[in-house]
Amino acid sequence: MSQRTRRLGRGVAVVGAGMSKFGAFKDKSSRDLFVEAFTEMKKSVDKGLDAGDIDALYLGNFSSDLFEGQGHTAPIMTDWVGLIPKPATRVENACASGGAALREGIIAVASGIYDVVLVGGVEKMTNLPTERVTDTLAAAGDAIYETPAGFTFPGLYAAMATAYMAKHGAKVEHFMKVGIKNHNNGALNPKAQFGSIKDVMEGRIARAKERGQPVPSWDNELEFLHDPVTNPVVAWPMRLFDCSPISDGAACILLVAENVAREFSDLPIYIIGSGQASDHALHQRAELTSIPAAKIAAKAAYEMAGVKPQDIKIAEVHDCFTVAEIIASEDIGFFEPGSGIKAVDEGKTARDGTKPINTSGGLKSKGHPIGASGIGQAVEVWTQMQGKAGPRQVSRNVDLALTHNVGATGGSCFVHIYERR
Amino acid sequence: MSQRTRRLGRGVAVVGAGMSKFGAFKDKSSRDLFVEAFTEMKKSVDKGLDAGDIDALYLGNFSSDLFEGQGHTAPIMTDWVGLIPKPATRVENACASGGAALREGIIAVASGIYDVVLVGGVEKMTNLPTERVTDTLAAAGDAIYETPAGFTFPGLYAAMATAYMAKHGAKVEHFMKVGIKNHNNGALNPKAQFGSIKDVMEGRIARAKERGQPVPSWDNELEFLHDPVTNPVVAWPMRLFDCSPISDGAACILLVAENVAREFSDLPIYIIGSGQASDHALHQRAELTSIPAAKIAAKAAYEMAGVKPQDIKIAEVHDCFTVAEIIASEDIGFFEPGSGIKAVDEGKTARDGTKPINTSGGLKSKGHPIGASGIGQAVEVWTQMQGKAGPRQVSRNVDLALTHNVGATGGSCFVHIYERR
Repeated sequence: MSQRTRRLGRGVAVVGAGMSKFGAFKDKSSRDLFVEAFTEMKKSVDKGLDAGDIDALYLGNFSSDLFEGQGHTAPIMTDWVGLIPKPATRVENACASGGAALREGIIAVASGIYDVVLVGGVEKMTNLPTERVTDTLAAAGDAIYETPAGFTFPGLYAAMATAYMAKHGAKVEHFMKVGIKNHNNGALNPKAQFGSIKDVMEGRIARAKERGQPVPSWDNELEFLHDPVTNPVVAWPMRLFDCSPISDGAACILLVAENVAREFSDLPIYIIGSGQASDHALHQRAELTSIPAAKIAAKAAYEMAGVKPQDIKIAEVHDCFTVAEIIASEDIGFFEPGSGIKAVDEGKTARDGTKPINTSGGLKSKGHPIGASGIGQAVEVWTQMQGKAGPRQVSRNVDLALTHNVGATGGSCFVHIYERR
Repeated sequence: MSQRTRRLGRGVAVVGAGMSKFGAFKDKSSRDLFVEAFTEMKKSVDKGLDAGDIDALYLGNFSSDLFEGQGHTAPIMTDWVGLIPKPATRVENACASGGAALREGIIAVASGIYDVVLVGGVEKMTNLPTERVTDTLAAAGDAIYETPAGFTFPGLYAAMATAYMAKHGAKVEHFMKVGIKNHNNGALNPKAQFGSIKDVMEGRIARAKERGQPVPSWDNELEFLHDPVTNPVVAWPMRLFDCSPISDGAACILLVAENVAREFSDLPIYIIGSGQASDHALHQRAELTSIPAAKIAAKAAYEMAGVKPQDIKIAEVHDCFTVAEIIASEDIGFFEPGSGIKAVDEGKTARDGTKPINTSGGLKSKGHPIGASGIGQAVEVWTQMQGKAGPRQVSRNVDLALTHNVGATGGSCFVHIYERR
């Protein structure tokens, strides 16, 4: 090979973002949720958007096939937001389907074939009975070597958690503290599926008092989370409140070519770095305490952007389980390997910390409608960079942000870096 | 919008192609089939390929989720051909998943982010019992408005066939003739699932004679195809031999940037046009005798390429059902609306005709492993343009070729144009 290029042909900016509320909506289809997200995105474009200007849709969706009996989802979504006959393509990389759609949208704008691209994500998971959802999600594991051995995703991430505990001395309280932080953030996000753990705890205490039932003796959230009835073990050390929920939801962003960005917005958010990598399924990896694909994707994104981890002000990372956030905070270079737990103890990743992570509430509290999650991350950093995050707005000047979206246990990973100029 | 661009940032060429045999392989997984296709592709690169030079994989796959209980298929395939940690992304647009992956590969090379891209397609359909495959494929219809009403794909295409018969006077014999032609081509393709209908017919006559059973009175293939026992109606007017088969298979091509193409091959095949469009599901369309998304995609591809239908020497079109080939031959501008049947009668689309279509045997005879079909089309035009198609090589100089890949009933369509310089 005489020549290598790893730069995009032209710059790309986000000029609008929107999402549905994430949650369990028995009366809504994925189409309804996608229309909600699209409508909010359209309103968010500060100089206005004529939908006819949209050239194409890239849709992240894990498995409408399994969840809704619906394949070929991209043209259906594009139809429901009135964009026929524009090109519409579904991208699937398990829980990183949103990040994958985002990357394809960026690449397409950079190629010159489109100027304005809608990037969306959607998943409608609650059609299935809860007990079948875990089996359905297990399709993202290795169907020959992992699933038949009984591995589900809580089990796979529990294996990573125990390895991390053994290597770095983490305690279950570290995982619990991640959950408490993210639920506190989610409590300030009107789109989040769940509020704070403290509210849940105090609500239960109040109800017990009202009913004259024995009043639980929890003094704080950690005690609440240690209660084996309130917070049962799913796959040790991952308990119920360590696992992201089953969610319905959709999210959209609008990408445009840098040269037309100011026609849409006075404050475009430029995507200056994009990294993607793949890996073997978990059973085949040499070590379990980091996600190699995340480290490679982050390195590629930082190199393309020409910035370093210390430059990034906030990050949305893939906390499908609490342990995953700690590992992610190391994989993206915020903290050294093994020191993610110290950062949790010191509150560095809290909203008012030095390295805020998952100000949206993360997958843990905001919700994890698989295909929408990666786009939901982009919606949060765009909102924070616009200064429009309301009560959860971080006080520091967010001029650089990062999103980190993992497929399955790290079979794929996507990292993006955003700049406000 | 101040500016519109519909050109690719830089040129893209195909420098290698390979495929597994298409068929029913009970003892092979999709991974095995993909490795076969990759291995043949690698050998086909005339100046040699170091797999380490491959920057990324785009994988077309309709639903490994439903067929194999396996999501997140792209990293698994990239692992099995030794490309970890290179980016790997699955693209799904129903039966046009292969065409969609091809388009994303082209866009990615054009963007400058990759120089060398593996584009593959795979589907393993025969794990499920045959009676469940039709239901599984129905997920590509509209799961709210079509599938619950009882529509399967033979039914949906039968609706198009009856509409076409009513409007243009087509007879069932026109559909049968398409099948006979494509099976004749498939008989010359060692990768095809099925050989000629004549061979099937003569084989049955010979066996009846050997066994002393009553000898069928078929005089020719048309009589054989009219026999309701031999060729039962699936959804009138579509009979068994009007339907593409249930297939396992994989196909790969290697795309490279124009500026490095000659490092891989002395005869790169340039992709000079790419078009994509979307449409409502069939129940919502104003007319059924053409596929609007195909016409729009073809127009876009011709405009990008700067050529016209009369310039194209051969085409591989999406003959999932025989009627679909006739409609496709009109949608891509080879023949006027309604005159596709006359072209069949006159043998224009035969291998030695003026407009050869589906020299590979098409989906009908070569097989239709959904996600692989669009890439299989690219493999055929590459092979013909290289002059390597052996006994099925068309005699004319194939300097321009076209592929046409339809998702479902035309909810999406991809058209690509190839040039040998």
